Amino acid sequence: MRKIHVIGIGAGDPDQLTLQAVKALRSTDVFFILDKGEVKSDLVQLRRDILDAHMPEGGYRLVEARDPDRDRTAGGPAYSPAVGDWRSARAAIYERLIAEELGEDESGAFLVWGDPALYDSTLGILEEILDRGAVAFSYEVIPGISSVSALVARHRTGLNRVARPVQITTGRRLAEGFPDGVDDVVVMLDAHQTFRRYTDEDIDIYWGAYIGTPDEILVSGPLAEVAPFIEDVRAEARERKGWIMDTYLLRRNPGL
Amino acid sequence: MRKIHVIGIGAGDPDQLTLQAVKALRSTDVFFILDKGEVKSDLVQLRRDILDAHMPEGGYRLVEARDPDRDRTAGGPAYSPAVGDWRSARAAIYERLIAEELGEDESGAFLVWGDPALYDSTLGILEEILDRGAVAFSYEVIPGISSVSALVARHRTGLNRVARPVQITTGRRLAEGFPDGVDDVVVMLDAHQTFRRYTDEDIDIYWGAYIGTPDEILVSGPLAEVAPFIEDVRAEARERKGWIMDTYLLRRNPGL
Ligand SMILES: C[S@@+](CC[C@H](N)C(=O)[O-])C[C@H]1O[C@@H](n2cnc3c(N)ncnc32)[C@H](O)[C@@H]1O
Ligand SMILES: C[S@@+](CC[C@H](N)C(=O)[O-])C[C@H]1O[C@@H](n2cnc3c(N)ncnc32)[C@H](O)[C@@H]1O
Repeated sequence: MRKIHVIGIGAGDPDQLTLQAVKALRSTDVFFILDKGEVKSDLVQLRRDILDAHMPEGGYRLVEARDPDRDRTAGGPAYSPAVGDWRSARAAIYERLIAEELGEDESGAFLVWGDPALYDSTLGILEEILDRGAVAFSYEVIPGISSVSALVARHRTGLNRVARPVQITTGRRLAEGFPDGVDDVVVMLDAHQTFRRYTDEDIDIYWGAYIGTPDEILVSGPLAEVAPFIEDVRAEARERKGWIMDTYLLRRNPGL
Repeated sequence: MRKIHVIGIGAGDPDQLTLQAVKALRSTDVFFILDKGEVKSDLVQLRRDILDAHMPEGGYRLVEARDPDRDRTAGGPAYSPAVGDWRSARAAIYERLIAEELGEDESGAFLVWGDPALYDSTLGILEEILDRGAVAFSYEVIPGISSVSALVARHRTGLNRVARPVQITTGRRLAEGFPDGVDDVVVMLDAHQTFRRYTDEDIDIYWGAYIGTPDEILVSGPLAEVAPFIEDVRAEARERKGWIMDTYLLRRNPGL
C-alpha cells in the first residue's frame, strides 16, 4: 500500500523541524513539491534546503508540479466556492502525482508550511482523493511548529492569558468585527492590515513578518501607537521582497 | 549575564522535540525541574529521558525543586486569585533557583510541557521575577508542539475549517456555554468532561488522552454517540494510571 507523510516543516526556521519530521523525511522515497509560481519561490527553496540538510546522501526523488492558480479576485461571499474549486483542481493534480509517481510500496511526502492543522488544504485534499476512490493510500500527519507558535515565542508571550480563551482567525473574519467572547485573537491570512480598524480600542499588538527567517521583523506595543509604524514597515518589506507573510496577536485590555 | 531557555518539549512524544530545542538543551548548564509530587512524576520522568537521550555525555547540572501546591479546592470566581498566589509562590522558588544555582555566565533551562505559549505559567513567572528586580537575566522561548497540534495530527484533521476561526479554551469556560461565533473549539484543562453538556447538538468530537505517549487513547465520532464511551474509557484509564491528561476538539455542524 502506498503511504503518504504530511510533514509540518515549521514556518521559516529550518531548526524548527521536529525529530519526528526528520525521521519521516528519511523514510520517504518521493517528495512532492508544488510551486505556486513567481513570488513564493523563496518558500519552495526552504523545502529544498531542508532536504539538502537532512538527506545529504540523496536517495530520494523530487517531483515538482505547478499549483493551480486560485481565483484570487473572488471576494466576499464567493470566497468559499472559489476555495472549493481550487481544492478540487489541486486534488486532481495530487491524485495524478500519487498514482503516477509513487510505486505501490513506496512512501511519498508533502512538506507543509508551519503546522498542517492551520489554514492548510493538504489534509482536505487527501481526503477528497480517497473519497474519489481512484487511488488508495494510507497517510500520517506529522505536526509542525505553526507561525502562531513561532510568533508568540519570539515575542516571549503566551497565546492565552490565565484561564482565558484565545481565538485564531483570518483577516477577512476580523474585518467583520472583533470576535465575541475573547480578548486574545491571532490573525492570519490578512492582506489588508485589518488591525487598523481597532486602533480606537485599548489593545496591544504583537506582530511578526517572515518569522523564523533571516528577514524576520517583529513589532509590539499599544495598537494605536504602533499601527502606523507597522503599516510602513510592512509596505516597505513587501515592496523590497515582492511578497510578505505576517501574523499578529491582538490582546485587548478587558478593563474597557 | 545569566541566560534562561524556556524550552517547549512537546506533549508526550520525545521525537516531537525540535532541532532548535535540542540545540538549546545542549547549550544549557543547569536544568531546573519542578516536581509536582506524586502522580505527575511520569511527566518529570519524560524530562529526564529527554536529557539522557540528547545529552548522553552529561556535562550539565540538574536542580530539582518541589513545586508549591496550588490550592485546588478553590472553585468558581476564586480561580484567578488562587492562580495568582500560586504564581507568586512559584516565582519566589524560581527566583531563588536562578540566583543560587546559576552562575553569572551560565545558562539555565526550564523544560516546558507542549508549547510554552499555551496554558503554562513559566513566562508569566519569569516576567514577575524580572519585575521584582532582585535577579537579572535574559531569556529566550523555544516553541514546542502543543497537545493541541498533536491531537489533531493524530486524528488527521485540521484545527480550523476553510476560512473559519477556531477557539482554544478551558473546560471551565466551556461549562459557561458553547463559545460565541465559532463552531470549532479545542478544550484543555477539563477535569469534568464538560463535553457531556453538548450531546444534544450536532457536534463531532476528536478526543485524545496521553497523546504521544505509549498510553495514547484516541476516540472520535458524533458526540452524542461516543460521549458515553469516552466517559468510560477516561474513567478506566484514570483509575489505572492514577492521572489523566486529555484534550479534545468539538466541531459543530453549522447547519443547525
Ligand atoms: C495558508 S496559511 C498557512 C499557515 C501555516 N500552516 C502555519 O501553521 O503557520 C498562511 C498564513 O500563515 C501565516 N504565516 C506563515 N508563515 C509565516 C511566517 N514565517 N511569518 C509570519 N506569518 C506567517 C501568515 O498569516 C500567512 O498569511
Ligand atoms: C497546563 S496545560 C499545558 C498545555 C501545554 N503547554 C501544551 O502546549 O499542550 C495542561 C493541559 O494540556 C493538555 N495536555 C497536555 N499534554 C497532553 C497529552 N499528552 N494528551 C492530552 N492532553 C494533553 C490537557 O488538556 C491538560 O489539561
